[in-house]
Amino acid sequence: MSSGSIFVWEVLGTAVLILMGAGVVANVTLKSALGNSGGWLLINFGWGFAVFAGASIAAPSGAHLNPAVTLGLAVADKLPWGQVPVYFAAQLVGAFLGAVLAWLTYKKQFDTHDDPAGTRGIFCTGPTVPSAPWNVVSEVIATFVLVAWVLLSPAAKEMADGVPQLGNSALGYAGVAFVVIGLGNSLGGPTGYAINPARDLGPRIAYAVLPIRGKGSAEWGYAWVPVVGPLLGAVLAGLLYLVLPV
Amino acid sequence: MSSGSIFVWEVLGTAVLILMGAGVVANVTLKSALGNSGGWLLINFGWGFAVFAGASIAAPSGAHLNPAVTLGLAVADKLPWGQVPVYFAAQLVGAFLGAVLAWLTYKKQFDTHDDPAGTRGIFCTGPTVPSAPWNVVSEVIATFVLVAWVLLSPAAKEMADGVPQLGNSALGYAGVAFVVIGLGNSLGGPTGYAINPARDLGPRIAYAVLPIRGKGSAEWGYAWVPVVGPLLGAVLAGLLYLVLPV
Amino acid sequence: MSSGSIFVWEVLGTAVLILMGAGVVANVTLKSALGNSGGWLLINFGWGFAVFAGASIAAPSGAHLNPAVTLGLAVADKLPWGQVPVYFAAQLVGAFLGAVLAWLTYKKQFDTHDDPAGTRGIFCTGPTVPSAPWNVVSEVIATFVLVAWVLLSPAAKEMADGVPQLGNSALGYAGVAFVVIGLGNSLGGPTGYAINPARDLGPRIAYAVLPIRGKGSAEWGYAWVPVVGPLLGAVLAGLLYLVLPV
Amino acid sequence: MSSGSIFVWEVLGTAVLILMGAGVVANVTLKSALGNSGGWLLINFGWGFAVFAGASIAAPSGAHLNPAVTLGLAVADKLPWGQVPVYFAAQLVGAFLGAVLAWLTYKKQFDTHDDPAGTRGIFCTGPTVPSAPWNVVSEVIATFVLVAWVLLSPAAKEMADGVPQLGNSALGYAGVAFVVIGLGNSLGGPTGYAINPARDLGPRIAYAVLPIRGKGSAEWGYAWVPVVGPLLGAVLAGLLYLVLPV
Repeated sequence: MSSGSIFVWEVLGTAVLILMGAGVVANVTLKSALGNSGGWLLINFGWGFAVFAGASIAAPSGAHLNPAVTLGLAVADKLPWGQVPVYFAAQLVGAFLGAVLAWLTYKKQFDTHDDPAGTRGIFCTGPTVPSAPWNVVSEVIATFVLVAWVLLSPAAKEMADGVPQLGNSALGYAGVAFVVIGLGNSLGGPTGYAINPARDLGPRIAYAVLPIRGKGSAEWGYAWVPVVGPLLGAVLAGLLYLVLPV
Repeated sequence: MSSGSIFVWEVLGTAVLILMGAGVVANVTLKSALGNSGGWLLINFGWGFAVFAGASIAAPSGAHLNPAVTLGLAVADKLPWGQVPVYFAAQLVGAFLGAVLAWLTYKKQFDTHDDPAGTRGIFCTGPTVPSAPWNVVSEVIATFVLVAWVLLSPAAKEMADGVPQLGNSALGYAGVAFVVIGLGNSLGGPTGYAINPARDLGPRIAYAVLPIRGKGSAEWGYAWVPVVGPLLGAVLAGLLYLVLPV
Repeated sequence: MSSGSIFVWEVLGTAVLILMGAGVVANVTLKSALGNSGGWLLINFGWGFAVFAGASIAAPSGAHLNPAVTLGLAVADKLPWGQVPVYFAAQLVGAFLGAVLAWLTYKKQFDTHDDPAGTRGIFCTGPTVPSAPWNVVSEVIATFVLVAWVLLSPAAKEMADGVPQLGNSALGYAGVAFVVIGLGNSLGGPTGYAINPARDLGPRIAYAVLPIRGKGSAEWGYAWVPVVGPLLGAVLAGLLYLVLPV
Repeated sequence: MSSGSIFVWEVLGTAVLILMGAGVVANVTLKSALGNSGGWLLINFGWGFAVFAGASIAAPSGAHLNPAVTLGLAVADKLPWGQVPVYFAAQLVGAFLGAVLAWLTYKKQFDTHDDPAGTRGIFCTGPTVPSAPWNVVSEVIATFVLVAWVLLSPAAKEMADGVPQLGNSALGYAGVAFVVIGLGNSLGGPTGYAINPARDLGPRIAYAVLPIRGKGSAEWGYAWVPVVGPLLGAVLAGLLYLVLPV
């Protein structure tokens, strides 16, 4: 597949992922949204089915939607290193666009929210207990599980063997959705589970540049953690793949 | 398939969809129902599995159940334009019937509800922050994702290639159910996610004509938004399909 | 398959269904259970996955687990009428056994519950607004959807065509589980969704005969509603099947 | 498959299972985690999708991840008895490692938790009403259902017939995840549903040896119940399999 096609599909899939993912946090956070105070399980299902929708749509490019997945596949020798920058760029662009669309969807709810300075959490993640090293550890472990599943589950092997899609049926991507719901349930508590550098960085840039009413700081000091942690976890999963008796 | 058969299956499937969908909102809204105050996630699962049940049953006609899906398929050159009016008519009739059945199921709960004027939300959608242009935007974006998924996910391609069913197993329609649950979680907050003109208009007519105890206004001034917004989103998704390197 | 084998599998599958179904209501109802006050969605998922577990196990007999399903298949000419009594008897025996097992699982939680007279709801259903005719209507409509799905969804056609199992994979029965979760979400509000005569009658007998601490009345006056309503809904679904252009 | 390979895959899969399973309880229990007070359904989904993730990854070894599953397969003559100790050892080691990783993920949340003596429940199970015989009964019944499903569902038959994986698609292990979610919903109320000796014993050892801030007793007096109960339930399920007309 041409780099141009990869770019188009990854932009589209990642935009859907972030539109729906940022959307569910907006729905739970904003006072006049119908899902206000809907709870952690609602957020997890929203992100999980966001992955399902975005990944199904982006099937032609392999539906990475996440630089950690791309990097893990490259480390595991399943993706040419030359394609990595195309995937990374598309994922960041798509994540930015998805965040803009989520803001447009909830425009009036943002405009009438009575705590606008606290809207950053709709766009990007943050730690409940600030501690750079331990926040990195949390992101490394959670992303390691995600990328290990992508590399080792039977579905992933199909992709690794050159099949460009994780599945060819309506439900082909439900497996990764279930893993993401599970990771949010279980390991999302300390840092809000970025587990995807583009998922955090793209919307953080959107938060910084969009004219959101009364918005607060984009907290750039934390921005490196959800980039470095997931990439490190992906490298570890890729290396594990290389040494396992697959 | 004959127009008559399409009509029968679409009426049946859409009636099941709206019976269950209006049913879950009745369950959460009505004071003496067991699901009272069950929350947004319960509503989302109810609508999602309503899609699953109705779409499985209506497999012979392709299970559109939604004028936006029908229009998107036509714009994408996947459905003869001449069949569009048959689908539209059947979907509106089915949605009206489903709403009547939901009212009959909850008849005694309606009769003993202490805020009957507020029962419109069981039948049709409304904005949390009234603003016609932005309410349209919310419906356009959410419906765009739904129709783009139907057109672009591998399951949808089977249908686009002339296979009349999204799947041929017990789970063939779970994919679209997961997308609808996800859209409710994420993008349903501003307007209650009609994302389907028939889903809103059919039950709104039912609300207007049924002898519901102490009912309030059907809010006809808003009724065009959940018709125009979803149809516009469907056209955009259909046009995207035509320009993408599928 | 011999009547003896049908009996064994239906007893086993229905026992698992009711053990888990009565179990989830016990978990939500009993004060010292960990799921206490877990809400309607928890109850719906518990019953849905109870169907999944019981139906998977009872695959050899076709996994009816429900006299309404058996009757609907017979009316639709998909099951010899002579087998109906075997299914009915096994389902009632299995439902009774499952209720006994649920009571044993929660024995100490029953013994320490501070409102023992209110434990009937763990075993059998009841209306939130008593009205025999309308309670029957609610059960007819909900069961009609269940049996129509069993008869009309692609999965059901496999069974109707002589394949004894709804599916041959790990997920073959997830479809019916999703429908049951959806029906609980949407149409379970008025009567607690028996939608299965054995599901109500078997545990009601168990409630009447088990030495449950401080138990209240078994409310035999209502017991016919969740038998007649579901059977009537099943007949209507079977008749619909016969007239549809399948 | 060599004993060494079995060991590696079972350690990895069980570690993922317990990392995510202990993780979701940490998320709900610890005051500064985002899932705090998320409820029983969140816990059930967390454990269920933990099984999905761990089992998908451990497909090459058959993904037992649970001594009760291993024992049930051996009793049912589906696994050589000589392999049983390898599975048992790997499962215990994996469960210990998973618990350590969960603690590392939530390290700062543990360090700032204001009731550290109550953190044992994150690692291992306990009864809501202490009573060794009845607590054993609860674990026997719940584990019996799990192992009966593994032995009798169509998916399990594939494994029993020598196919080393429960499924070969992205969703092959969703079936067992749905059963585990359902068992948590329904039968987890009395004892917290160990239904797996390694799931309880491995993390209990981790709780005893890790330098967790202000931790309380590991309650060794109860530790035999979630070992003996599940193994007994597995033996009963295996014996049932041998006498059924499969």
